[in-house]
Formats: sequence, C-alpha cells, structure tokens
Amino acid sequence: MTKHMQRDLERLRDSVLRMAGYVEHAVHSATRAVSDRDTDAATAVVSGDTEIDELENHLQEDCLNILALHQPVAKDLRRIGTVMLITTDLERMGDLAVGIAERAIELAHPPRVVVPDRLHQMAGRATRMMRLALDAFVNEDAAAARAVIGMDDEVDADNDELVLHAIEEMKRSPDRVEAGVALFSIVRHVERIADHATNIAEDVIFLVEGAIVRHHHDEVIPPPE
Amino acid sequence: MTKHMQRDLERLRDSVLRMAGYVEHAVHSATRAVSDRDTDAATAVVSGDTEIDELENHLQEDCLNILALHQPVAKDLRRIGTVMLITTDLERMGDLAVGIAERAIELAHPPRVVVPDRLHQMAGRATRMMRLALDAFVNEDAAAARAVIGMDDEVDADNDELVLHAIEEMKRSPDRVEAGVALFSIVRHVERIADHATNIAEDVIFLVEGAIVRHHHDEVIPPPE
Repeated sequence: MTKHMQRDLERLRDSVLRMAGYVEHAVHSATRAVSDRDTDAATAVVSGDTEIDELENHLQEDCLNILALHQPVAKDLRRIGTVMLITTDLERMGDLAVGIAERAIELAHPPRVVVPDRLHQMAGRATRMMRLALDAFVNEDAAAARAVIGMDDEVDADNDELVLHAIEEMKRSPDRVEAGVALFSIVRHVERIADHATNIAEDVIFLVEGAIVRHHHDEVIPPPE
Repeated sequence: MTKHMQRDLERLRDSVLRMAGYVEHAVHSATRAVSDRDTDAATAVVSGDTEIDELENHLQEDCLNILALHQPVAKDLRRIGTVMLITTDLERMGDLAVGIAERAIELAHPPRVVVPDRLHQMAGRATRMMRLALDAFVNEDAAAARAVIGMDDEVDADNDELVLHAIEEMKRSPDRVEAGVALFSIVRHVERIADHATNIAEDVIFLVEGAIVRHHHDEVIPPPE
C-alpha cells in the first residue's frame, strides 16, 4: 500500500467512526425521547438526520475518488468496498432513529401506553453491537465480528418480550391501539438497527477473510490469503 | 470496454434479472398467501429464500472476480458497483417476502381479520417499481429511474389506508389484536419492498450520471461525463 493510499484509508475510517457516533447519539436520543415523552428531543433527532445523510454522501464520494485515484486491488479494494457498505448501513440506522423519533412524538400524547425500561436496554444492546462491529472493522478482527453476530440473540429476546407487551397494551382498551402500534413499530425499528449492526459485522468478515459469509454464519470458511 | 469484459457484464445483468424474477415471484406468492390464507404457498416462499440467498452469493462473487480480473475504471467500475448494490437490495426484498409469508401463516388461523384487496395491489405496485428500476438499469436510463422514484407516493397512499384498516380491525375486539398486528407488519414489509425498489432506481441514476442522488431526489445534477 502506498503512503498516500494509507493516509486516504485512515481518513475514510475516521469519517466512518464520526458518522457512527452521530448515529449512536440519534438512536439513544430517539429511544430516550420515547421513555421521557420528550417531543423536543425527538424533533431534534428528526432534523439531525440531514447531517447523517450529508456524511454518507461525502463518504461515498470519497470512496469513489480513492477508487479512481489509486485503483486498489485485492484487500485494499475490499477495504474501500467495506466502507461503502458500512456507510449505507449507518445511513439506514439513522433513518430508523428518525422513525423511532417520529413515533415518540405520537406516543407523547394521551392515551398513553407503558414504555418498559427494556426498550432502552434493547437500544443500548443494538448500538453496542454497532460499536463493536466498527471496532472489529478498525482492527480487521473477524473473531470479534463473529461475536457481534452472536449478540443478536439477546436483541431478539428483547424484541419478543417487548412485542408481547405492546400487544397486551393494545388489548387493554381500543383507545390504546394506536399507541400500542406505535410502540410495536419502535421495537421493530430497534430490531432492524441490530440487523444493520449484524450486516456490518458480516462485511468485516468479508473484508478480513475475503469470503462472503452472508447467510452462512456457522460455516468455517478458510481465509484465501 | 474489452469484448471479454462486455461478455462478463452481460452475464452479470442476466443473473440480476433472474434473481429479480425469483424475488418478484416470492413477493406475489407471499401476499397472495395472505389473502387466500394459504399456508402451503407461504411455506414455499419461506423455503424458496435459500435459492435467492445463493443467487446473491454467486452474484457478489462474480462481481469480485470481474473486478479482480479486469480492474475496470470509471463507468465500468460503477456498473459492477451498481450490480453489487442492486443484488443487496434484491436479497433484502426476498427476506421481506419471507417475513410476509411467515405472517401469512399466523393470519391463516382464527380469529381472522379482513384482508383488503388493496394489499395485493400495493404489492403489485412495489414489484412493478422493482421491474421498472431494473429496466432502467439495463437501459441505463436515468429518466426512467427518476419516474420509479416518483411512483413511491402511490405506495405510501396504499400504506396509509391499509395501516388505518389494520388499526380499525384491532379496535373491533381484543381477540383481533394479534392478527391486526400481523396485517400491520405485512403492510410495512410491502412498503419496505417499494423502498428497496427506490434504492435500485437511485443506484441507476448514480450509474448513469456518476453522482450520488440519495437524499437529493429533487435536485438537478449535471452529468459529469
């Protein structure tokens, strides 16, 4: 790898981590806004998404410029490709945070449903998966990426319990159906945030091992290099 | 473009169209299974997803091999990149069809909710968007791709009406809450299928014009080449 290329790659990584910081903050603020019935915080998440979108556009353009300039091959090419894929996932996570914030605004008005603490724990687990997947990316550590994929089971358990809770709330009275549906949607959004963290982890395994592991988490794939 | 490269690109396109055919079939079967309460058809969609996953893996590997072999630049590089992005979207559309089919199985048992015809129309519109986005890809037609993005408004209108219907069903009786939630989920899944068709259309505009249009549908971007 040339020095110039290495410097460009480091810059890309820094931008990815900065974007991930924004997304993590958005997810936390959005789920906190649900529990606190805080419409101001929710509105801030919605308007903050423009910044995440701009970061995505800049990052994708940077990747294309680096591809055009250095014409990297093999692992360097995969490094750029991985940044493009991760960036796409992060942007969608930002959109999901907006979806949560929009529903937080609906939920702030009566009739209210009970928002269990477990929702915030679930969101914490999902963003932790994202953070660990990005650590695995920076360290090019496939084992750490596989550990992230394994964490999805806990989020699934959170999901199942919270969905049951939302359904119980809806059954209590027809008045609560809209709020229960909003809560259900929020839970599904957090679940999808965790799915995107899993995607990132899969991309890291691809980066390190050069083999596509999507749909084949459990297979042992020998690294080709 | 060398003859060899052109042949490889044509092969890639054929594979993408074949994969899209599978996905379209899965979406239609899954939503038909909802209306017909046909658990056999739904089960077939779930088990058929393995094939879609395999097609994705083969396509992604083909793209990497072509990149390594020909080291394309500029528009040819974007052609391969676009195939990789489209393939990812098609695979997720297949997953969404599976999600619909799984809920179709839940909905087949009483207590039942009314499934409006509009659900199948909505799914038809979403798969039509996908087909037109792929036509735009094959013809490298940015105007056609922009038309696809415009079609999303109709799907949004379907979504709004069907969500209201699902909520009304849930309000009719606590017994119907689970089925209403399943119907709500199905509608949201179809909406996301249309979102993926929009993604594909955006990728086609990027391919043709070399500029990233995500989050900037309405701006006129001058083609750089």
